[in-house]
Amino acid sequence: SSSSGLIPVTLFPGDGIGPEIAESVKQVFTAAEVPIEWEEHFVGTEVDPRTQSFVTWESLESVRRNKVGLKGPMATPIGKGHRSLNLTLRKELNLYANVRPCYSLPGYKTRYDDVNLVTIRENTEGEYSGLEHQVVRGVVESLKIITRQASLRVAEYAFYYAKAHGRDRVSAIHKANIMQKTDGLFLKCCREVAEKYPEIKYEEVVIDNCCMMLVKNPALFDVLVMPNLYGDIISDLCAGLIGGLGLTPSLNIGEGGIALAEAVHGSAPDIAGKNLANPTALLLSAVSMLHHLNLNEKGDKIQEAVLKTIAEGKYRTGDLGGSSTTTEFTKAIIDHL
Amino acid sequence: SSSSGLIPVTLFPGDGIGPEIAESVKQVFTAAEVPIEWEEHFVGTEVDPRTQSFVTWESLESVRRNKVGLKGPMATPIGKGHRSLNLTLRKELNLYANVRPCYSLPGYKTRYDDVNLVTIRENTEGEYSGLEHQVVRGVVESLKIITRQASLRVAEYAFYYAKAHGRDRVSAIHKANIMQKTDGLFLKCCREVAEKYPEIKYEEVVIDNCCMMLVKNPALFDVLVMPNLYGDIISDLCAGLIGGLGLTPSLNIGEGGIALAEAVHGSAPDIAGKNLANPTALLLSAVSMLHHLNLNEKGDKIQEAVLKTIAEGKYRTGDLGGSSTTTEFTKAIIDHL
Ligand SMILES: CC(C)[C@H](C(=O)O)[C@@H](O)C(=O)O
Ligand SMILES: CC(C)[C@H](C(=O)O)[C@@H](O)C(=O)O
Repeated sequence: SSSSGLIPVTLFPGDGIGPEIAESVKQVFTAAEVPIEWEEHFVGTEVDPRTQSFVTWESLESVRRNKVGLKGPMATPIGKGHRSLNLTLRKELNLYANVRPCYSLPGYKTRYDDVNLVTIRENTEGEYSGLEHQVVRGVVESLKIITRQASLRVAEYAFYYAKAHGRDRVSAIHKANIMQKTDGLFLKCCREVAEKYPEIKYEEVVIDNCCMMLVKNPALFDVLVMPNLYGDIISDLCAGLIGGLGLTPSLNIGEGGIALAEAVHGSAPDIAGKNLANPTALLLSAVSMLHHLNLNEKGDKIQEAVLKTIAEGKYRTGDLGGSSTTTEFTKAIIDHL
Repeated sequence: SSSSGLIPVTLFPGDGIGPEIAESVKQVFTAAEVPIEWEEHFVGTEVDPRTQSFVTWESLESVRRNKVGLKGPMATPIGKGHRSLNLTLRKELNLYANVRPCYSLPGYKTRYDDVNLVTIRENTEGEYSGLEHQVVRGVVESLKIITRQASLRVAEYAFYYAKAHGRDRVSAIHKANIMQKTDGLFLKCCREVAEKYPEIKYEEVVIDNCCMMLVKNPALFDVLVMPNLYGDIISDLCAGLIGGLGLTPSLNIGEGGIALAEAVHGSAPDIAGKNLANPTALLLSAVSMLHHLNLNEKGDKIQEAVLKTIAEGKYRTGDLGGSSTTTEFTKAIIDHL
């Protein structure tokens, strides 16, 4: 921690609605007297050759130094010759696990009221290898890469997480009946780790069947761990069950204890700067970050205030059917602290 | 057609509950006076070297000759040195498009009452190439193959289907933001075909977002076309929305006008032979087959009788919360013809 005695945390407000929702988080954190200090970094206006992206090297250094960060939405500028901002962060910071708790919000009605699960996505390899080529005209191939190292690492994290959060089941999601070698290796690694956690139930579910079960009865699931693309698909599906990406927190875990919390929704340029954005996903992501920092009391208090504000329903932003501004919603949360 | 004047149709009753639900279809077809005659084929007890599978060469020849077939569930026997029965059929018969209409059944309550869409899945390539290998110890790769030929073929079928069935929108599902070459080629082919159908709206939806939209508001979709694995996932997700695989028809379209209808649920060995199985998926698949044969009047009549029986709710099998036998349910359908 810094000379102020406060824990330094890197903050990427991001683009579009990013700065507004980041402002909301800053205000709530100040009101809750969270003992952190923000180190703000902005997306560059030119490609940084060291990252091949608009993400600057300095901002990555900040996360590496602080080991903890919070990130708003970042829209990758259109154009050639640079990497997506999100993928750059994952790659450069080795953010190997994407953790998304997903639970029905009390008082906010969707078709489901019994969701309470966590998806843990391998975040560095699989279908995201970037290895693709044309074999002959009209025939292209992509490589899906699964390694023992990355599979063990994410499986370890999933079981560690389940145990630490008092969750009693881990489901490994796969398509090993078709991709016997790649998904087969992923499962083998999950089984190895499962053996070290006899107190946690372990099961394997084929991805197509998993999606069917999730929409029929999401209460069947607890912690789900899976390769990259399946995690991309299933975490968004689960977000849909409880209302969408505007409501779900996300935390990326990296090598060396790095944790980068992020709102996974888009930057919503259409409503940017209009004080209409919903800061919930970024707030709940910030709460995940506090839990990661073992600032559990602060985290719980903020989470409670956010959930209460949504449950009461008096102050809700437009995306949740209300007509409050970001500022009004934020003030209501602070009043509930 | 054969000397009897009836249209010959290959029938694979399949394993487990297969024979019982096939019997139900036969009875309903007889009662409805459908002008077809069944040519029954059974899964072999030994691997046929010509197919490397328990599917016999003779049974494939029957489908090739008749150009139309109906198939119950087939469980691939455990063991090495042979191919999955379902994959063998797809490969050998070049069943390039899997078509699954998915609609809310009147009177059968799920969390959704507004589903009315059709998934069209490329069924021969993509992640199902079977090409996998270990690169070095602990590093494995699978190849996803996308070809212009197969992508155009399934896109053509999707637009043809949309037009023939009075549906006005086709959504191509992809992850081309990550797999730019493979999914990019798939999209390129869809766009080319879309240009020939200016009367049909065309859109592209990223798979993660698609799954989120499907669980939030499935009424947003009409016809969906996609590569193999996405189709596998999304067609099961959609089946879940309306109650599960026991209720959804499936029709495979092959080169040369072949059509193989199939129940995509499992063979349910636990209830096999007990007169408890629900024949709905196989019946509605048989209806898809009749529509394919342009026996629309017969098809509509049977479909109506099945839906009415389920809607009334007096005779339902155990999976739908009732206590009727397969025979009782079948008789009720026949009474509604
Ligand atoms: C924007 C896209 C590259 C990204 C992904 O596929 O990982 C997004 O869907 C996510 O889940 O963060
Ligand atoms: C059993 C399995 C190989 C098959 C598939 O993945 O295609 C099944 O899920 C299906 O959809 O028919």
